[in-house]
Amino acid sequence: MKLKVRTLYIEAGGRPIVVLNKEDAKSLGIHAVDRIEIKYKDKRLVAITNISTIFPEGYIGLYKEVCEQLKVSAGEEVDVKAAHRPASTRYIQAKIHGKRLLEHEIKTIIRDVVERRISDIELSAFVTALYIHGSSMNEKEALTKAMVETGKKLNIKKKPILDKHSIGGIPGDKTTIVLVPIVAAAGYTIPKTSSRAITSPAGTADRMEVLCPVNLSLEEIKEVISKVNACIVWGGALDLAPADDLFIQVEYPLAIDPLLLPSIISKKKAMGADYVVIDIPTGREAKIKTIDEAHELAKEFIELGKRLGMNIQCAITFGEQPLGYAIGPALEAKEALLTLMGKGPEDLEEKAINLAGILFEMVGESNGKKKAREILRKGLAERKLREIIEAQGGNPKIKIEDIPIGREKAIITAAKEGRIVWINNRDIAHLARTAGAPKDKGAGILLNVKLGDYVKKGDKLFTIYAERLTKLEEAIKLTEQLEVIGISKDIRDLMLIERIPTEKIHEKTFILER
Amino acid sequence: MKLKVRTLYIEAGGRPIVVLNKEDAKSLGIHAVDRIEIKYKDKRLVAITNISTIFPEGYIGLYKEVCEQLKVSAGEEVDVKAAHRPASTRYIQAKIHGKRLLEHEIKTIIRDVVERRISDIELSAFVTALYIHGSSMNEKEALTKAMVETGKKLNIKKKPILDKHSIGGIPGDKTTIVLVPIVAAAGYTIPKTSSRAITSPAGTADRMEVLCPVNLSLEEIKEVISKVNACIVWGGALDLAPADDLFIQVEYPLAIDPLLLPSIISKKKAMGADYVVIDIPTGREAKIKTIDEAHELAKEFIELGKRLGMNIQCAITFGEQPLGYAIGPALEAKEALLTLMGKGPEDLEEKAINLAGILFEMVGESNGKKKAREILRKGLAERKLREIIEAQGGNPKIKIEDIPIGREKAIITAAKEGRIVWINNRDIAHLARTAGAPKDKGAGILLNVKLGDYVKKGDKLFTIYAERLTKLEEAIKLTEQLEVIGISKDIRDLMLIERIPTEKIHEKTFILER
Repeated sequence: MKLKVRTLYIEAGGRPIVVLNKEDAKSLGIHAVDRIEIKYKDKRLVAITNISTIFPEGYIGLYKEVCEQLKVSAGEEVDVKAAHRPASTRYIQAKIHGKRLLEHEIKTIIRDVVERRISDIELSAFVTALYIHGSSMNEKEALTKAMVETGKKLNIKKKPILDKHSIGGIPGDKTTIVLVPIVAAAGYTIPKTSSRAITSPAGTADRMEVLCPVNLSLEEIKEVISKVNACIVWGGALDLAPADDLFIQVEYPLAIDPLLLPSIISKKKAMGADYVVIDIPTGREAKIKTIDEAHELAKEFIELGKRLGMNIQCAITFGEQPLGYAIGPALEAKEALLTLMGKGPEDLEEKAINLAGILFEMVGESNGKKKAREILRKGLAERKLREIIEAQGGNPKIKIEDIPIGREKAIITAAKEGRIVWINNRDIAHLARTAGAPKDKGAGILLNVKLGDYVKKGDKLFTIYAERLTKLEEAIKLTEQLEVIGISKDIRDLMLIERIPTEKIHEKTFILER
Repeated sequence: MKLKVRTLYIEAGGRPIVVLNKEDAKSLGIHAVDRIEIKYKDKRLVAITNISTIFPEGYIGLYKEVCEQLKVSAGEEVDVKAAHRPASTRYIQAKIHGKRLLEHEIKTIIRDVVERRISDIELSAFVTALYIHGSSMNEKEALTKAMVETGKKLNIKKKPILDKHSIGGIPGDKTTIVLVPIVAAAGYTIPKTSSRAITSPAGTADRMEVLCPVNLSLEEIKEVISKVNACIVWGGALDLAPADDLFIQVEYPLAIDPLLLPSIISKKKAMGADYVVIDIPTGREAKIKTIDEAHELAKEFIELGKRLGMNIQCAITFGEQPLGYAIGPALEAKEALLTLMGKGPEDLEEKAINLAGILFEMVGESNGKKKAREILRKGLAERKLREIIEAQGGNPKIKIEDIPIGREKAIITAAKEGRIVWINNRDIAHLARTAGAPKDKGAGILLNVKLGDYVKKGDKLFTIYAERLTKLEEAIKLTEQLEVIGISKDIRDLMLIERIPTEKIHEKTFILER
């Protein structure tokens, strides 16, 4: 069928989408999400069809991507016919029906996802089916390999390459900024890519960006590594696992994360990691709620690593409260720097040297934790961080007071006397985001108390920082609605957790950082 | 945030969709599929956001539906802020997690689906989760009721109202056109809505349209019913269950049908049915493969009917081959008319009088089948069909030879002598569609043989009819690739069904007619 081109001035995130009139679609025998092949001169392209009743007959609407690929302009004529669906749609259907997919089937799906031949409807169904049916270790291995194959790689010669990853979920977790310099100061190579916050108040890339640029290319990363053995950069624009970026677009609205393991491991593989420590913070308000769950996940990480030729160990860490006292990019960068200067909170320091110690022992050293502590105590890690900052283009002489914090602030005090019995991670994250984090880098929360501390009525609990007054006001209002921190003098206060029906909506928040 | 309007000359099937630049989205703190509230003068609207990197900053792209609702033009300024997701997205997530949904939760989902507040990604995940986890009878009841409540109804006073439905899947199933006149000739009211083919060669609406118009409004249907007690019309444009039309857009590409029962029963309820017979054709190449499966489904139909205040009985019918000899709209209309004139194939006649008989017995008559046969034999049903044709605006005097059949034809003959041991429903359907059905009404297949017939080498097996030579050629080519009809003189020929690996792709076809 011959149709005249209309150009639509929109893009579809790389997806080849065209619009057809309902009657033309009928003549071609195609329905929602069916594919058509478009021929123009010597170029051919298979596109996904949107069917419209108002779009004029005899025309075909081309999204930006399609025009560019066909090199066709408005008013010209193209030849159109029904095309087969890509084979991957059959495999997606098989997954919906609970089948285990074979390696070549998964490769086909991932390739078609990256090449945007899969519609949103099919992609969503695939992610949902993967979540509900789960995936076998063979499937996870194939997914990981396919994600690595369709992405870019950092090829560096120095071996071994060490790496660290946290599955996230704890506000204020700036461990990476302390750990990477410790490991690099010991002479090891650790090219660390980090995520930005999607639903949390700060990702490590957001924190590090307060100290220096993190938007480096693979070539720039290589240069940094050759100088200082380490980097802390944003991994999101490196195209290490482009399939994952497309899966996130679906996982985020559905609040499910069935590709967690392939997503993490494929990126570690792309960076060439040989030894990886994975942090699994565990707590009632964290991503992983129980020790049992953490063990299950750890087993899978270790097995998947083995299959990809990586040595992995996991650390189950205390996730019942924020790490350190600071939440929000700038507040956290400050706290990380303080910790490297020997003046940081104990829990953060302890976590960083524990994880660094595990890495040291994985590569054959004895008493890794002791070694890590010494490097930190001697100021070698601080020096290394300053080297990294300089190599990435920041100011290596940066002082604590150089880091700007939001000028608007509000102090929240204890309404009664007692012991701190809980600090709600999700509420703290919600509050910090409401104050403006991570976009406003100076916004966030600075805690004055941690679990087990004893406060008197009127004592400071935490300070909210914001860059804009309106944001501060919103955060203060939210504080009044939430019970962020629980104080109790009496065990009897704790027995009734909640009464149902309740007036407040029990929202399950979804923690996504990549 | 203030943004300037750009109008996008496309529609999104009623969905309120807007396009934002990535940076503007970030400032608003929103991600893929998040909602924003747009304010323009005194109008407010919540829309789903598409995020684009090429769309200019400071602008908002509005789809046609959004412009119309806000009554805003290009260049004007609107006020935009992040909005909450509708509650139904939480319930969809609960379903993904395998929860049983409560009635009010399902009502909320269906209302939000009909009001287009759900994105494709969420809708697809919901349908996938419903398919994988299944739905309880309570959920089916709530889905059905919600689908009825959000749709239109035919309110007719005459009681009782009888109805018939086939879950489909058998090519050539023109039972309705024979059954409805039998039932109406006995004085009962039967306002039958039928579907068009989506993936089959003909739906009943396509068949009936050869004889008279089927695109009637609810008001026109009422008028027809008041005159002749019956109709056979297309249900698709009546808005009886608008949610279902939206679900189909997702079910079709995924080839799953988890809303089969609510979809059927909601439409029967909307037509006011009191007594319904449901035909479940069962056969290896039909929608339902085994008697066990058919029993399971029948039990659910009966229970769901009861909960909606409908008396339902089911008929499990022989589905191992096409019904009658004709496949394709015009060929089938001819065969149905012939059957009412007493000159049709035995299997079709037998099926129609059996199902009509069940309906007669459901309303209290004894020996319903005998009654149905008498009505047919006496020509009362033929007379009634002609009355229906006239009432719907067709020619009541239509003769068999008035019905045009495709002029292009090819006769396929037996390559060897033997007994017909199988006729592949899916291949027959595929062939008829390739010849042009249902769009070309004169296209289709006319069988010369049925199961158990004995043929000599060179005997006619079937004739392919087409309106266009190119279509006929395609169908002939396909015949050479498929083994549509199996002939065997010797049991030994039948023992090996298929060898694997095979060169041919084992495509599971999806039968969808609504």
